Amino acid sequence: MDVILKDTERIDDLQIKGLRIIQDKEGFCFGIDAVLLANFTKIKNNSKVVDLGTGTGIIPILIAGKSKAKEIIGVEIQREVADMAKKSVKLNKLEDRVKIINEDIKNIENILPVNTFHVVTSNPPYMHTDGIKNINDKKAISRHEIMCNLEDVIKSASRLLMHHGKFYMVHRPIRLADIMTLSRKYKLEPKIIQFIHPKVGKAPNLMLIQFTKAGKPELKVLEPLYVYKENGEYTDKIKEIYAKEDIGEI
Amino acid sequence: MDVILKDTERIDDLQIKGLRIIQDKEGFCFGIDAVLLANFTKIKNNSKVVDLGTGTGIIPILIAGKSKAKEIIGVEIQREVADMAKKSVKLNKLEDRVKIINEDIKNIENILPVNTFHVVTSNPPYMHTDGIKNINDKKAISRHEIMCNLEDVIKSASRLLMHHGKFYMVHRPIRLADIMTLSRKYKLEPKIIQFIHPKVGKAPNLMLIQFTKAGKPELKVLEPLYVYKENGEYTDKIKEIYAKEDIGEI
Repeated sequence: MDVILKDTERIDDLQIKGLRIIQDKEGFCFGIDAVLLANFTKIKNNSKVVDLGTGTGIIPILIAGKSKAKEIIGVEIQREVADMAKKSVKLNKLEDRVKIINEDIKNIENILPVNTFHVVTSNPPYMHTDGIKNINDKKAISRHEIMCNLEDVIKSASRLLMHHGKFYMVHRPIRLADIMTLSRKYKLEPKIIQFIHPKVGKAPNLMLIQFTKAGKPELKVLEPLYVYKENGEYTDKIKEIYAKEDIGEI
Repeated sequence: MDVILKDTERIDDLQIKGLRIIQDKEGFCFGIDAVLLANFTKIKNNSKVVDLGTGTGIIPILIAGKSKAKEIIGVEIQREVADMAKKSVKLNKLEDRVKIINEDIKNIENILPVNTFHVVTSNPPYMHTDGIKNINDKKAISRHEIMCNLEDVIKSASRLLMHHGKFYMVHRPIRLADIMTLSRKYKLEPKIIQFIHPKVGKAPNLMLIQFTKAGKPELKVLEPLYVYKENGEYTDKIKEIYAKEDIGEI
């Protein structure tokens, strides 16, 4: 393995298909949201996929490992984070299918071909910029809408997708109305929503959404997904999602 | 009691506070949706309330029985249905607080004062008009968007409400994106959503939404509400809602 780690970096085993990822111990580490999103996607063989704001590259790596996608491009604005993602791609020997580019998604039309991709994914920063102390902090950039906001993400996804292409996003329920109105603005029709609840009896704190570019208005809300059992363990459903070998679709 | 029933009409006991309702055995009878909506509202003492598309008057009657609202106006376009609702109001001796008017909600600005009401409620027709055989059928008018559509309901609610007034609606999840975009168009901000599932593990088939006129964008999705237990009985939560004595708010 010819990947050199920095002092603050470590390699984590993704516990599926031998996949591994490099993360910065002091930086933003991927969460359950990214894993749920990757497993919520359906990827046809030979698809071309873009992940907007890819961070450590967790989503492209999981999609590459679990599907027969032809090409997966992760776009990340932070140079150091993008470099780390590139090293993870190399570590997993996925260089022929996964490409990480260090660019600003607001400039996407000058970087990637528009109306071309089958699937776009994004686990964007969830929070407004109110009350942020240090906007140069890498973790803050991953969590807050400092470098891009919800509209930038939705607009870029729409531009990249081919007609009837699919956009998959994970976000917080508090932004549901914003997401519905912005997605309609950019011709991304919300088709499937699943709310993620920490446990039974609790309000959802995440949601997975699938949009279809120029899709027919008809939304399906799925049964709720619960993360933890009463005893604090993952539910069987969550274990099943983590262990899913194949997100391919015929 | 000086209320005269037609041959096809019957009186049903609402099992709460002695309230009763007249329904047409061959017409559209109120469902759990109306009961859940009435109990989802919060009504301050002396409030002025309008129910759009009131049908049998079930929502005004429940709100009158369970709150100290000053005035509740039910608007119903079908004359025979409105007449039946008027008889139910009389049967419950609520004439001093509940008024049923036989009007078209599309004409609401010429009937009722705008920017005046504290609360508007609606259990509107859920379905598009595709595939309807008889558009004069009373049941079809209650179920399909024949006489008014979602935009008419949302627009009328917005016109009637005072600044920061509340609109409560029950509808199907399939229309969520339509509802979010139309409500924003008419300055009704969605604030609380609760999805209603037939039972655990099933997708929701109804949703309750509370909007605030000119409210701050910030949506709360509540924990799911399940209607039936595995054995087919109502859940305790549903029984509790039906038995709720007071929907008043200080």
